[in-house]
Amino acid sequence: MKTVHRYLPAILCSLTLLGPAASGARQTAGTGGLESSFDNGLSADSLRAWMKILSARPHHAGSAYGKENAEFIAGKFRSWGFETEIERFDVLFPVPESRSLEMLEPSRFTAKLAEPPLEADATSGQSSEQLPTYNAYSADGDVTGELVYVNYGIPDDYTELERRGIDVRGKIVIARYGGSWRGIKPKVAAEHGAIGCIIYSDPSGDGYTAGDVYPRGGYRNESGAQRGSVADMPVYPGDPLTPGTASTPGAKRLALADAQTITKIPTLPISYSDATPLLEALGGPVAPGEWRGGLPLTYHLGPGPAKVRLAVKFTWDNVPIYDVRGTLPGTERPDQWIIRGNHHDAWVNGATDPVSGLVAMMDEARSLGRLVADGWKPKRSIVYCAWDGEEPGLLGSTEWVEAHADALKQRAAVYINSDSNSRGFLNAGGSHSLEKFFNTVSRDVPDPQYGISVLERRRAADIVNASGADRDELRNRAGLRLYPLGSGSDYTPFLQHAGVASLNVGFGGEDQYGQYHSIYDSYDHYIRFMDTDFSYGVALAKTCGRTVIRLADADVLPFDFTDFSATLDRYVREVGELADRLRDEAAERERELGDSSLTYASNPAEHIETPGPLDEVPYFNFAPLQNAAAAVREKAAAYSELTAGLEKEGAAIPAAKQQALDAVLLGMERRLTLPSGLPGRPWYVHQVYAPGAYTGYGVKTLPAVRESLELRRWADVDPQIASVAGVLMNYAEGIGEAIRILRGN
Amino acid sequence: MKTVHRYLPAILCSLTLLGPAASGARQTAGTGGLESSFDNGLSADSLRAWMKILSARPHHAGSAYGKENAEFIAGKFRSWGFETEIERFDVLFPVPESRSLEMLEPSRFTAKLAEPPLEADATSGQSSEQLPTYNAYSADGDVTGELVYVNYGIPDDYTELERRGIDVRGKIVIARYGGSWRGIKPKVAAEHGAIGCIIYSDPSGDGYTAGDVYPRGGYRNESGAQRGSVADMPVYPGDPLTPGTASTPGAKRLALADAQTITKIPTLPISYSDATPLLEALGGPVAPGEWRGGLPLTYHLGPGPAKVRLAVKFTWDNVPIYDVRGTLPGTERPDQWIIRGNHHDAWVNGATDPVSGLVAMMDEARSLGRLVADGWKPKRSIVYCAWDGEEPGLLGSTEWVEAHADALKQRAAVYINSDSNSRGFLNAGGSHSLEKFFNTVSRDVPDPQYGISVLERRRAADIVNASGADRDELRNRAGLRLYPLGSGSDYTPFLQHAGVASLNVGFGGEDQYGQYHSIYDSYDHYIRFMDTDFSYGVALAKTCGRTVIRLADADVLPFDFTDFSATLDRYVREVGELADRLRDEAAERERELGDSSLTYASNPAEHIETPGPLDEVPYFNFAPLQNAAAAVREKAAAYSELTAGLEKEGAAIPAAKQQALDAVLLGMERRLTLPSGLPGRPWYVHQVYAPGAYTGYGVKTLPAVRESLELRRWADVDPQIASVAGVLMNYAEGIGEAIRILRGN
Repeated sequence: MKTVHRYLPAILCSLTLLGPAASGARQTAGTGGLESSFDNGLSADSLRAWMKILSARPHHAGSAYGKENAEFIAGKFRSWGFETEIERFDVLFPVPESRSLEMLEPSRFTAKLAEPPLEADATSGQSSEQLPTYNAYSADGDVTGELVYVNYGIPDDYTELERRGIDVRGKIVIARYGGSWRGIKPKVAAEHGAIGCIIYSDPSGDGYTAGDVYPRGGYRNESGAQRGSVADMPVYPGDPLTPGTASTPGAKRLALADAQTITKIPTLPISYSDATPLLEALGGPVAPGEWRGGLPLTYHLGPGPAKVRLAVKFTWDNVPIYDVRGTLPGTERPDQWIIRGNHHDAWVNGATDPVSGLVAMMDEARSLGRLVADGWKPKRSIVYCAWDGEEPGLLGSTEWVEAHADALKQRAAVYINSDSNSRGFLNAGGSHSLEKFFNTVSRDVPDPQYGISVLERRRAADIVNASGADRDELRNRAGLRLYPLGSGSDYTPFLQHAGVASLNVGFGGEDQYGQYHSIYDSYDHYIRFMDTDFSYGVALAKTCGRTVIRLADADVLPFDFTDFSATLDRYVREVGELADRLRDEAAERERELGDSSLTYASNPAEHIETPGPLDEVPYFNFAPLQNAAAAVREKAAAYSELTAGLEKEGAAIPAAKQQALDAVLLGMERRLTLPSGLPGRPWYVHQVYAPGAYTGYGVKTLPAVRESLELRRWADVDPQIASVAGVLMNYAEGIGEAIRILRGN
Repeated sequence: MKTVHRYLPAILCSLTLLGPAASGARQTAGTGGLESSFDNGLSADSLRAWMKILSARPHHAGSAYGKENAEFIAGKFRSWGFETEIERFDVLFPVPESRSLEMLEPSRFTAKLAEPPLEADATSGQSSEQLPTYNAYSADGDVTGELVYVNYGIPDDYTELERRGIDVRGKIVIARYGGSWRGIKPKVAAEHGAIGCIIYSDPSGDGYTAGDVYPRGGYRNESGAQRGSVADMPVYPGDPLTPGTASTPGAKRLALADAQTITKIPTLPISYSDATPLLEALGGPVAPGEWRGGLPLTYHLGPGPAKVRLAVKFTWDNVPIYDVRGTLPGTERPDQWIIRGNHHDAWVNGATDPVSGLVAMMDEARSLGRLVADGWKPKRSIVYCAWDGEEPGLLGSTEWVEAHADALKQRAAVYINSDSNSRGFLNAGGSHSLEKFFNTVSRDVPDPQYGISVLERRRAADIVNASGADRDELRNRAGLRLYPLGSGSDYTPFLQHAGVASLNVGFGGEDQYGQYHSIYDSYDHYIRFMDTDFSYGVALAKTCGRTVIRLADADVLPFDFTDFSATLDRYVREVGELADRLRDEAAERERELGDSSLTYASNPAEHIETPGPLDEVPYFNFAPLQNAAAAVREKAAAYSELTAGLEKEGAAIPAAKQQALDAVLLGMERRLTLPSGLPGRPWYVHQVYAPGAYTGYGVKTLPAVRESLELRRWADVDPQIASVAGVLMNYAEGIGEAIRILRGN
């Protein structure tokens, strides 16, 4: 269907939807002239043309076309006036030598493990260059065992299995995609003694239940399978053999056997046509209601009688990957970097993932280059990066961050990431010290379909979809909340390893995206089912381009700490409430076991064991966290008041003070890190945002405290509270330094 | 699987689970001796044997075997000492002469419309006696038109279709079962101009999504179809040609064309194997997310390209139905009737529906007969009824109530209904003036699996499944709440037409019931997947038998009004909150239309019209209702205090006072009725409980007020509040009379 364009006068809608805040102060707003010129330099046609080129052939890490793409991008950057280089890393990237999955009992079936070419999809037949369907960093293995269905394969699922007397030791598990980062599934399966892990795409996720399947619609058809990394990314991303250091040619590498992030058991992703005979052959109890997917069968748990043999063998070679970097040097503060990135590697052709975001970023670069050619002199350096090897495990960005850690600590002001992009609503996550600033940006970018700002459109949807007190709260804020970043794209090494304030920006929600990591994530798919006219690609370029321009040109880096503080207060409240809830749950469990009501409420014929008692939850001392949050709150308010006052007076900050302030502000996010990292995963140093150890993509805020509670490590809670409180106190101190500079005392 | 029996000492568990109220006063508790003897007279083997006989052949209304069953039951009643008679009514009961459903475009398909015999099910091959799959009281018709999928086919679904520009005028709709009484579907379809209605059983309801299908498991297989009435029962149940009067041989009958409850359009139920090709052939927009069922396809709305021809033709004959009634006359107050009923007709073999409840009721009758033979002299008359023709529309009970309306007004004290019964938890609904009494009964019946009382088991499950404040509230009440009665079984004419205080009792929740109204609702199915050892049949007999014994023998009818009043207060609060919510919704809609946020939140490519404004909701005068509820509250408290005081003193109420009190109490439920009935449906006279005009089975409490609000008939609200308030004032006055009698003034 053709996108309907209804350009409404943006300013009119803005006044209608927003209160006074909308017209409020924007210390960092660029001149209308500069940003108009920037916008004029963008073109949907370029995005389309580049997507066609970049997605013309498979371009995964280590592929010939991946290298060609890197050179193509570098050539463009150069032609637009960027100081450009390609940086190579050699990373472990296993690809299959052989894969097979057979059912041996109660009947024989051999999985096809193939996505067939479709006439409607021009690139789907490039089988000689396509990576087969597989999970990268699965261990080699040839295992035979009874099958058990484990739902999403997250820890809670195994608790349910145990209550039903089902043990996966020596068994092969089949899990459906969803519910967690895929790497969690083989990890948890292995922790429970399983010997193999199959992951399939249930049609209730992105298949026919979601919408018409490809090529009639955009969703995953019966043969579509989701490739993807199963490395234990929550421990560390990047090359499994070089944690914490760059995988340069001469770098010291771990022995394969010592690489902590490679799965312990063989793992393979399959389509729902391959999964159906296996699931049909399962006996044992019927799966719990919420475990049932969209296949036309009754989901059983097993074990058996289905018995399968899973055999996978991989090359374990290092392959070269190519990060492209183009710089527009700053004139006044060249040693402050505004870094913008999007990956360029794909699992196969990757029109959506990552090319849709990549081409928007390229157009930004082109238009910025033109502004510079026309005389614009950004104060700070602008660095555009196209990362390789994101798909296997954020390889290109992680190795680059590890290679340039010292420089980044000195110079990186902000990292702005994008990835897949489509038609719909603005989604933005990141460091909350950038929230106020980013709202001034998104308030100035028109939505391609309605003409109001992308901020206002997202806000309208949030309000319409909320209810009660939540709706009132949304109405009372003029801006949007940034969501906290977990993982899943290249911001992770910047934010969570290097402590660089980061943003992740994209549009979506009005597409038919069922081709994630499939050969059908193609140009032909994109122009029918995603951002069909590339108008949201241009909107992404406008959003991120403005972000870059304003950051590069600001007199003082536009950090503000009041939104950070408000969000921090929420997180502190949340971990306190989490402790209370766990305590209530344990008490309630004790009560329901004591009076046997849990037994009486159960169906004895189902033979489901009553859950056992929960260990008692002690009371914790949250005061250090609360005091630290209070200190941040106080300083944040003072800093905000001071800068607002200066702006009101129209008082320019003297250049010397600007430099001193920037030096403090540029280091603020780093103050949220601890060199010792998170418990059990030292690579992750950020103490406010991290991917969950057992969720993967899903964020855990105040992770050291929250995960100590969730994992019921009671003895760790108070020490972690104290440790995180110290970090936050240091953050408050940083704001204090900025205040002293502004006050000149 | 075999049911696990774990008999625990009931009194021990009782003390553990319940507070002091559990050991509170029981003015109506029978002597342990009598009830033990009653229990000893019950036998699971009898239930099993009678089920085998009664479900041996199809026994729908008007069938040969239905008549045989009536005579079998009557013979048993007689043999147990009941004064027994069979009362015949002649009722309109159409059965199919021909049925056909074909798809003409885009490809040809002829629906099988048949449930095949299964080897594992001995009675499934009795095709010569089985009613085919059809909907009783569908109009005749032969229509051809494009198909539209309408989800459940309730009013809100048509609103969603309209927003998508889909008009069902001249079309045939296909709706899935669920979401309402099935008769609502053709009614609403016709109101919107559809010319035919197909209703199918989606596997997400009672098919493979729910569990293994028959005969592997108990759920509906691909050929199973749900027969059932589609009469407009919320207008009136019973013979469509004799609303309000008994369909005795000479009775005046409406012309067929004037019968209000027959559908306006032809209607047919089908299985999911018949529905699949039709749904697969639908084009048009993809159905909204919540509309998608469990079939392996993407649900589209149409209209077309699927074009179907639906042709159904019925006999429109009157058939004889046979109600069985057996009476044990009361010795002291023979003119006060305790009525117990369960229907005996089925759609086909009906092992679950209704035989499972029927055989329990028969065993009660046998055991009561033995008590009488052994010398027990119940004060009041006990009347056991087996109704015919329930399935087509509560025919047997409705015609009987209409035939004996005057006697019932004078004599009926309480009606106790049951229907399908299975393993699991107690479910009890009814008049809240019986709530306290019924809790004294269910507190004395042991759960067959755990030995604690059936009350305690249900309460334990309610507590375990609740959370937060709801759980606390449940813990703070010693008893169970009766659910309010809507419709769907034979209590409707008693409660809602004759104003007889009623109870509806059953067990369930631990079964595999996917054979509702199918040929596979058989003995073979029952003993594998339902109450496999008939222990819950015996529990039902113990529960209802005790209810009957205590009601028959009480010195004074055990009505209490404090629970009624507390429940009434809740309903009054609910209708007030409903008005507020509707007002808030209209205001919110206005706001979201005014600032266009509803538009901005929508996907323009979907071409879904923004919902229009909602008419403003005036403020209503709820004071009369609140004052009436207050009056009830005050009187209820006074009556309760007075009776508790007497009980404490051990003071016997003199016989004359008992009679006078009974006369008032017996008329109390009638005081909740208005002869003019509910707006637009005069047959329904009860002003507190009614089936919803657009939900069918689903109850509407304070229906005249609630439905005026829901249907946005603002002008009706205040008058209905006043009218219902008058009824409640009269109820309070009734309690006042009882108080005056007790006080002797």
